Amino acid sequence: MKRVLYRSRGPVPQQVVEVETFDPPALAPGQVRVEVLAAPINPSDLLTLTGEYGSLPPLPAVAGNEGVGRVVELAPGLDAPALGQTVLLPVGSGTWTTHLVADARALVPLPDGADPLQLAMLTVNPPTAQLLLTGTVPLQAGDWVIQNAANSAVGGYLVQLARARGVRTVNVVRRESAVADVEAMGGDVVLVDGDGLVERIRDATGEARIRLGIDAVGGTATARIADALAPGGVVVNYGAMGGEPCTVSPAALIFRGITLRGFWLAHWYKVTDAGARNALFAELVSLIASGRLKARVQAVYGIDDIGAAIGAAAAGERSGKVLLVPSGDPVSHRSRHG
Amino acid sequence: MKRVLYRSRGPVPQQVVEVETFDPPALAPGQVRVEVLAAPINPSDLLTLTGEYGSLPPLPAVAGNEGVGRVVELAPGLDAPALGQTVLLPVGSGTWTTHLVADARALVPLPDGADPLQLAMLTVNPPTAQLLLTGTVPLQAGDWVIQNAANSAVGGYLVQLARARGVRTVNVVRRESAVADVEAMGGDVVLVDGDGLVERIRDATGEARIRLGIDAVGGTATARIADALAPGGVVVNYGAMGGEPCTVSPAALIFRGITLRGFWLAHWYKVTDAGARNALFAELVSLIASGRLKARVQAVYGIDDIGAAIGAAAAGERSGKVLLVPSGDPVSHRSRHG
Repeated sequence: MKRVLYRSRGPVPQQVVEVETFDPPALAPGQVRVEVLAAPINPSDLLTLTGEYGSLPPLPAVAGNEGVGRVVELAPGLDAPALGQTVLLPVGSGTWTTHLVADARALVPLPDGADPLQLAMLTVNPPTAQLLLTGTVPLQAGDWVIQNAANSAVGGYLVQLARARGVRTVNVVRRESAVADVEAMGGDVVLVDGDGLVERIRDATGEARIRLGIDAVGGTATARIADALAPGGVVVNYGAMGGEPCTVSPAALIFRGITLRGFWLAHWYKVTDAGARNALFAELVSLIASGRLKARVQAVYGIDDIGAAIGAAAAGERSGKVLLVPSGDPVSHRSRHG
Repeated sequence: MKRVLYRSRGPVPQQVVEVETFDPPALAPGQVRVEVLAAPINPSDLLTLTGEYGSLPPLPAVAGNEGVGRVVELAPGLDAPALGQTVLLPVGSGTWTTHLVADARALVPLPDGADPLQLAMLTVNPPTAQLLLTGTVPLQAGDWVIQNAANSAVGGYLVQLARARGVRTVNVVRRESAVADVEAMGGDVVLVDGDGLVERIRDATGEARIRLGIDAVGGTATARIADALAPGGVVVNYGAMGGEPCTVSPAALIFRGITLRGFWLAHWYKVTDAGARNALFAELVSLIASGRLKARVQAVYGIDDIGAAIGAAAAGERSGKVLLVPSGDPVSHRSRHG
C-alpha cells in the first residue's frame, strides 16, 4: 500500500510530497478498509501543500481531501457497507493513498454504476458552485448571474447548476481559447475579460440587472465583476487565481451599494449539520450519476506519478481536472464501474 | 444678495464656480426667506463640483448641501417659524448663498444659543459617523471599532459618538502630526498607518476582537483595516481619500469571512422616513448644542472668497472644517448667537 505524505510545506508542492509505502493497519471495531478509486487534485490541495490555505493539518499528513473508494474489508461484526460497495470518502481524510481506514458510519454509499472519476469530485467543487449560486442572493428562473474563471471546474459546475434552475449565466474567461468550452457546457453569454467588459455585458444581456457576481480571480477582475452588477448587488470571492488582492472602487461600494464577501466551503462544512450536508450530497450525486452534472477531466495519474500530476494540476491553462487513480490503471477502473 | 453658482463641472472646483448677484424673489404662500448663517464645504460638495459624486443636480445649480440660517421674512399668513429663529436648511438646498427661500414646513428650528458654525455641520458628517457606528454591526459598551482617516471631521465625530456609548476606538491616521489631535478628541488608541499596523493594533488593544472597521481611504489602507478585524468582521467604506480602489485579500474574504461594503448618507436619506431622520437630528442637535459633539473649524470665509475657501477645503492636510459665512463677518455672527 502506498500514500502521498508531506512532512513540511513549501512554495513548490511537488517538492514537499513523497510516496510512502505502508503496511495495512489492523481494523478496530466499526472500521472499514477502503481501496481508493479516484481522488482529484484541487487548488485547495495545492494551497494546503504551500501553506497558503486557511486551515492546515498538523504535520506529517497524508495529502488529498476528497475521493471515492471501494470497500475491501470490514471489521468483524460489521455487515454494512457491503464489500465492493462504492463509497464517498470522508472530507479531509487524506485521500491520496491506495487504501485508507475509515469509520463505517462516516462512509456515504454511492451508486455503483456511475463514473468514479466524476463521483470523486463530489464534495469540493459541486457544493462550492451550488452554494455560491444559492447561498447569497435569492435568484429566480430568468435571473442572471455573472462569474469569472468560468472555465474552471467550479465555473463549469456553476453553469450546469444554474441552467438546471433556469438561471442565466454571464461567463468571463481569460483567453479566447476557453470560450468554446464554456459555450459547450451551456453558458448563455461567454466573454473574454478586459477593456469594455461592462459595456459588452450590458449589450449581451440587454442591460440585465445582475445582482450576483462570482469572482475567483481577484485584482482588477473583481472590480469589473462589481461594476457589472446592478445597485445593491453582491460579489462573492472564492479564489485568487490572479494572485492579487481583490479591488472594488469606493464609487461602486458607496454610490451603488455593492458588497464584497467571501465563500469558504470548509467553513460551511464546519457550521452545517450532517442532515443539510447529506441532502446537498444526495442532490448532487443524483445529478452526477445521471450524467447531468460533470466536470471535464484533463488527465489521470497513478500514485507513483504524483509529481507530474501536481505539476499538471498547478499549470495555468488546463482543459479539465487532474485526478489520481491511486491503485493503478484508470482505464481498468473505468471499465470495472462503467 | 449673492450665491455661488456653477454652470459646468470640472476637475478644479474653484474654476467652475462663480459668485452671482441676484434679486430677492417674491415669497409664495407658505414660504420663508432665510439668511444663511453658515454652510460648510464638505468633500461631497467638491465631488459634486468635479462630477465624481454619486448623484448630480441638473445645471446650472447653486452649490452647497447643508447649513443653518435665520428667518428674515415670512409669506403673508405664516406665523411660524418666528422671525429671527435659527433654522436648519433643507439638505441639498443650495446653501452657498446669502439668502434662500424655503417652504416653512421644511425648516427644522434649532436652539438659538448654540454656535451656528457647529449647527451648520449637522446633517452630513455627524449622521454619517453615527450611522457608520450603529448601522452595520451591533456594538456594546466595551467593544472596539477601528477607523482610518481618524483626523477627518467624520473621524472626530465618530470618536466622540463612540465614547458617548462606551465603545472604544482604534484610530489610524496618515501622519504623526495628527496623532495628538485625535487623542485630544478622546481616541483610545491612535496609530500612524503603515508597516506592522495589524500587530501594533493587537498590541495596543490586548488582541481585542474588533468586528467593525471603517475606511475612508481606500487602496491598501482598506486591506489593513480588514486584516485588523476578527473573523466575520465588516469593513464599511465611505470615502476615497487615497484616490485608489479599495483592496482586500481573498484570504481575508474567504478564510476569515470579512465583508466589505459601502455607506452613502444620501441613500440613507432617500430610504429613511422623516420621523427616523428627525429623531437622529434631534439626538445630534442636543449633543451639539450642549457642546458634547463638535468638529474643529480651520477657517471661515465670506461668500466673495469662495475660491480661496474651496482651495482650503480641498487641501490634503487640514486641521478642521472650512465653512462659508455667506452674509459677512463670521465673528459678528458668532457674537450674535454665542
